[in-house]
Amino acid sequence: MSKGLPKRSEDYSLWYNELVKRADLAENSAVRGCMVIKPYGFSIWEKMQAELDRMFKKTGHSNAYFPLFIPKSYLSKEASHVEGFAKECAVVTHYRLKADPSGKGVIVDPEAALEEELIVRPTSETVIWSTYKNWIQSYRDLPLLINQWANVVRWEMRTRLFLRTSEFLWQEGHTAHETKKEAIEETVRMMNVYAEFAENFMAMPVIRGVKSESEKFAGAVDTYCIEAMMQDGKALQAGTSHFLGQNFAKAFDVKFAGRDGELEHVWGTSWGVSTRLMGALIMAHSDDNGLVLPPKLAPIQVVIIPIFKSEEELAAIREKAHEIMDELDALGITVKFDDRDTFKPGWKFAEYELKGVPLRLGIGPRDLKNKTVEMARRDNLTKSIVNLEQEDLPVKIKATLEDIQKSIYEKARVFTREKTTTADNWEEFVELLEKKGGFISAHWDGTAATESQIKEKTKATIRCIPLDQVQEEGQCILSGKPSRGRVLFARAY
Amino acid sequence: MSKGLPKRSEDYSLWYNELVKRADLAENSAVRGCMVIKPYGFSIWEKMQAELDRMFKKTGHSNAYFPLFIPKSYLSKEASHVEGFAKECAVVTHYRLKADPSGKGVIVDPEAALEEELIVRPTSETVIWSTYKNWIQSYRDLPLLINQWANVVRWEMRTRLFLRTSEFLWQEGHTAHETKKEAIEETVRMMNVYAEFAENFMAMPVIRGVKSESEKFAGAVDTYCIEAMMQDGKALQAGTSHFLGQNFAKAFDVKFAGRDGELEHVWGTSWGVSTRLMGALIMAHSDDNGLVLPPKLAPIQVVIIPIFKSEEELAAIREKAHEIMDELDALGITVKFDDRDTFKPGWKFAEYELKGVPLRLGIGPRDLKNKTVEMARRDNLTKSIVNLEQEDLPVKIKATLEDIQKSIYEKARVFTREKTTTADNWEEFVELLEKKGGFISAHWDGTAATESQIKEKTKATIRCIPLDQVQEEGQCILSGKPSRGRVLFARAY
Repeated sequence: MSKGLPKRSEDYSLWYNELVKRADLAENSAVRGCMVIKPYGFSIWEKMQAELDRMFKKTGHSNAYFPLFIPKSYLSKEASHVEGFAKECAVVTHYRLKADPSGKGVIVDPEAALEEELIVRPTSETVIWSTYKNWIQSYRDLPLLINQWANVVRWEMRTRLFLRTSEFLWQEGHTAHETKKEAIEETVRMMNVYAEFAENFMAMPVIRGVKSESEKFAGAVDTYCIEAMMQDGKALQAGTSHFLGQNFAKAFDVKFAGRDGELEHVWGTSWGVSTRLMGALIMAHSDDNGLVLPPKLAPIQVVIIPIFKSEEELAAIREKAHEIMDELDALGITVKFDDRDTFKPGWKFAEYELKGVPLRLGIGPRDLKNKTVEMARRDNLTKSIVNLEQEDLPVKIKATLEDIQKSIYEKARVFTREKTTTADNWEEFVELLEKKGGFISAHWDGTAATESQIKEKTKATIRCIPLDQVQEEGQCILSGKPSRGRVLFARAY
Repeated sequence: MSKGLPKRSEDYSLWYNELVKRADLAENSAVRGCMVIKPYGFSIWEKMQAELDRMFKKTGHSNAYFPLFIPKSYLSKEASHVEGFAKECAVVTHYRLKADPSGKGVIVDPEAALEEELIVRPTSETVIWSTYKNWIQSYRDLPLLINQWANVVRWEMRTRLFLRTSEFLWQEGHTAHETKKEAIEETVRMMNVYAEFAENFMAMPVIRGVKSESEKFAGAVDTYCIEAMMQDGKALQAGTSHFLGQNFAKAFDVKFAGRDGELEHVWGTSWGVSTRLMGALIMAHSDDNGLVLPPKLAPIQVVIIPIFKSEEELAAIREKAHEIMDELDALGITVKFDDRDTFKPGWKFAEYELKGVPLRLGIGPRDLKNKTVEMARRDNLTKSIVNLEQEDLPVKIKATLEDIQKSIYEKARVFTREKTTTADNWEEFVELLEKKGGFISAHWDGTAATESQIKEKTKATIRCIPLDQVQEEGQCILSGKPSRGRVLFARAY
């Protein structure tokens, strides 16, 4: 057991913060709201990146890189976009420091003011569409399918490691299309890519849906999203894919000569996921002992811990361990052998539990004699003895890792289902929110006014209009006005 | 031939700029000094990144991520560091915009001034060492071997695509060690990693050496570097590795309890290469027809171009092409089949020459009949007919790609050797610089004053004191004072 990790049931928020720090995932930096992603945390992010990148390339996208800075005037070109981002951005106003005449340190050189201030990108639609203008002349230049991996800055007042930080890492796809239909197809395709990644790699079930008007991206016509349920009953938006219509094409005058020779504005999409996924991964599966990582994203999938008293015992175990490591290596399984003599086995057990290593093998002198290995699963904390003469260890490990991946997903799926309830009136709705949390499926009259009142009264927001929404007549839980289908409410991160 | 690409012999600089743009590598953005790296250019950078990352991990380093912003006061903590970077940095002074009362666009909200200004990182020693302070307590925490892939900003007045841009992409390694000896070993190790990467992957021979006092990194005790020779006789610094001594440990008070229990300051290194390597790669090998890429870094290694008049002919060629593609795929060779009917074969030949694809296969109806394929090498522009009944095409292609990689390196090696000359007096030195360029090996009295005079008179700088410098008595070419070994001068990018 990790010494003093707070319990989820007692203080979920504190549990999360402490876990992120103690498992060496991230920490706050000296710069307000900016985090340091530590090597272990970053190695998980790298696995996420690699898989997402593979999925983006498989769906025809190429990576590129656009400037960090956006001229202030660009932000204003799309009206709702500037509305959404101007209030929380880092502004570069000068390009030089000089020695402080008082002799202490440096000051901003007032003579080095920029003619036009630059915004550190909060998202790159404006700078990218201003570039696309030169890249797109004809329908032959379309579709343009580009992604960028980058850092972005949004000046958040209240920050939390991974979940909401002033600087974060993300990818942002920006595509341009000939027709509205193609652009919508792309938007949906990328939402599905995100959903597949979340479910198959993060082992995290998600709801696919569309945002309400007031929750959509500033500059989008429609925002598609995936929403996940955390263990404390709060929802987390895990990825968004925006159908931009012709909004940015019009703002930046991006036209193409169509098949009929007529000039037309281009149709656009943008979509992104960020280091926020790290927060989702942690909160979806981890327990009071620490991280629980799905094997597909675990930087170390198997750890081997020797239990020994003497150098001779260690030497004998080491030989066996190296044999196992070679076999696992051949199967593409990442394995670590921790033979440090500065820490006791019990300390190591707790340490790798805290870090979420999916499988732990313990080998002691008696195991060598009996030709056994003790295998411990991180997800359900069960142990078993593997008889090496009766079972093929690498095959067993591979199958167990696959089972862990499935079990973690299944556990989260059942949890999400249990945390999804239907409310038919206001009293039910409020009671569910208070007592149970989770997703609440309820009728809404479709107006922003009602949505905003519900948020004000309960802090619950419309997470999405699910793609599998059933058309049914109903009455809005707050206004009582007619509704034609249920939407998903939740309190959210 | 690419229409109108300027010739190197007529205007090398214009040739470079045009090549970068026409080969779809990069272009200037709307933001002064910041570039857009286009998908094709970025795919080369991705190959560089992947290989370097593999080499860093193989030498024991982990990736992490540190904040984009550096508090202004941090920069001042290491005296020579602030001296080196304060004059060219982007300064964030505000965190919000607001609607312009005049009704036009947005303005910086004067009420949202930061208490302390933030600098967009020009390099991350300060923010990283302030973090290391909390990570290092004892010798058991050392060595700390961390790398980060990031964007950095240095406000350059004169910029050129890839070679010198205000924002660029790079990696920066930052390591902490118990002893001076270990830190120096790490510094040299990483210089060697860079040299191996440059030679084995970029096919670019480099000189390994140490910078003079005035050319070293602001904050380093010693800067090791690799220097390469471009086709116009100018040198290019391709990577640097800094031994920081205890400078940053002292500036940020990073101490560790040693094996003897005594507190001591940590020894540090930092090392980096950037998208500047793209410029080096282009200028080292390319010709008047366009890019020449070493196969190990070419995003497309082989292109197959069908020569056809009818749909039937194309269908037959396509079948053969797919067969070849499958075989190459199995060998890990990246191949593209360009069967667009909107462009003629001649146009495609020129296009893939411009883009530096190492091998081109042409297949026409007659080839199908004769069981042949025309193979054209990009590096030496030679063509040959491969008889498919007599030769194993995939094996031949694999061998040819390996030969191209070697040939490009060998050509650059011979060129660099020819461009390296010895000068024994000032007249020789000046004449060589004017008439031949390249590296000039000459005696120097070791003083910054002389170095600076030589630079002023000739624009030549000391590129490095080569690691293989021969100890020999001599006289400084300018001052005539005694010298104990030759250093390498050149005009440089």
